[in-house]
Amino acid sequence: MTNPRAAATPPKYQRLAADLRHRIDSGEWDGDGRLPVESDLEQQYGVARNTVRLAVDVLVNEGRVVRVQGKGTYLRRRSRYDHRVYPRPHRRGALPMGGAEYAAEARAAGVDLSFEYEVWAVRARRDIADWLGLRPEDSVMMRRQLCRVAQEPYAIEDSHYRPGLAAGTALMEDLPAPGGDERTLADLGRTETAATDHLTARMPDPAEAAWFELGPGVPLLVNTRVTRDRRGPIRVVETRYAADRARLLYELGDRAPAD
Amino acid sequence: MTNPRAAATPPKYQRLAADLRHRIDSGEWDGDGRLPVESDLEQQYGVARNTVRLAVDVLVNEGRVVRVQGKGTYLRRRSRYDHRVYPRPHRRGALPMGGAEYAAEARAAGVDLSFEYEVWAVRARRDIADWLGLRPEDSVMMRRQLCRVAQEPYAIEDSHYRPGLAAGTALMEDLPAPGGDERTLADLGRTETAATDHLTARMPDPAEAAWFELGPGVPLLVNTRVTRDRRGPIRVVETRYAADRARLLYELGDRAPAD
Repeated sequence: MTNPRAAATPPKYQRLAADLRHRIDSGEWDGDGRLPVESDLEQQYGVARNTVRLAVDVLVNEGRVVRVQGKGTYLRRRSRYDHRVYPRPHRRGALPMGGAEYAAEARAAGVDLSFEYEVWAVRARRDIADWLGLRPEDSVMMRRQLCRVAQEPYAIEDSHYRPGLAAGTALMEDLPAPGGDERTLADLGRTETAATDHLTARMPDPAEAAWFELGPGVPLLVNTRVTRDRRGPIRVVETRYAADRARLLYELGDRAPAD
Repeated sequence: MTNPRAAATPPKYQRLAADLRHRIDSGEWDGDGRLPVESDLEQQYGVARNTVRLAVDVLVNEGRVVRVQGKGTYLRRRSRYDHRVYPRPHRRGALPMGGAEYAAEARAAGVDLSFEYEVWAVRARRDIADWLGLRPEDSVMMRRQLCRVAQEPYAIEDSHYRPGLAAGTALMEDLPAPGGDERTLADLGRTETAATDHLTARMPDPAEAAWFELGPGVPLLVNTRVTRDRRGPIRVVETRYAADRARLLYELGDRAPAD
């Protein structure tokens, strides 16, 4: 990888996996999504069955294909949904887009989004306590939004609030807040005017893998957003996305034409 | 996960894994990074050795801990490096930050960054051909930048150029371009004024896992950036980051105070 011309030759099953990967990426099996059966691959490449098996194992572990018992090997295909995080010119004094606008825009584009809510008190994780100016292990209110796209699990969004901020408001109900959470915060005198998104990825834990219905080799994309106004931090919103379904889009620099 | 109060009780090893995960997150083993030996966990929890093994397997597969033969189980710890993608007020007519500035800022902050370069011609991937307005399988010039932080593998950045744009310029040398790639493009009359970042995550293939020295359960964070000026798209820059080392920061809305 450092220098492809000088690299040692990888083992045969890895070279076969690389070739299959290239054929997948070039769209060869986009039609029915089914790869040739193992005996065909054995013949095409003139290799042993075990080499074919090991090569397909590599692609299974990468989350690219899935073996269906008694049926064969298929491309893992889930419809992608691009979430445009930063799509609009700023309105003065507010973040470019809140959750309610985002949902409305998706629906206008014919995307079937649905949400469920849960609220409970948790002990603050250390980084969240730091961001909100709390002591470690202080309690925070967590409002969870479970998001499905076309009925399929898409994202889990956890908003963490200092209890004094959220108490007695719509943010403590397990229902959509009228006008969105941002509207409720604005009515409390805390209009979110800025945020920092921290993006990384990790493998799911078993509960996450179950809710997202993830196969092997599919990580989560994690965005930890800290929002603020002039008075300071307002909330920490950590959103986990199924990486085989979600792509986050950020627009930088000049506004794109005709967004 | 949909409703923690109504969820079926998970198997014992998963509950043990959840408890160990909580202890890891709360910093219990931050000192020497070593978890108790299996016999101690067996006693602490009053469970069978096999339950301990399965629970630790879960954490290994999540990339949280690593077993060292004959030594025990350790937290997987690599130093994190935050890449501030969007840290500055716009300068008029250019993207907020190019690679050379980024490297200079990192060095000023005492971060040891190093780079290697490679350049070759490849067939355009379909999405890249689309973005650059090429026919599928047209050839593009790819300039690869291998980035290490504190000598550890951090990111692979692949810039894809139409051959007519890059030919005969510093972009075709396997050396740093004087003033950075953005400067070279600006000198060609193509100042990058806008970009769209597309963020997702996936598991590494074997060559990637080898270069990044990734353990099991560590995905790649992938940013596919399409840059443009008023005339149209300029290049596609796909950057792969080791997700256990990298976090990408995007600033949204009002400028943060005192950046």
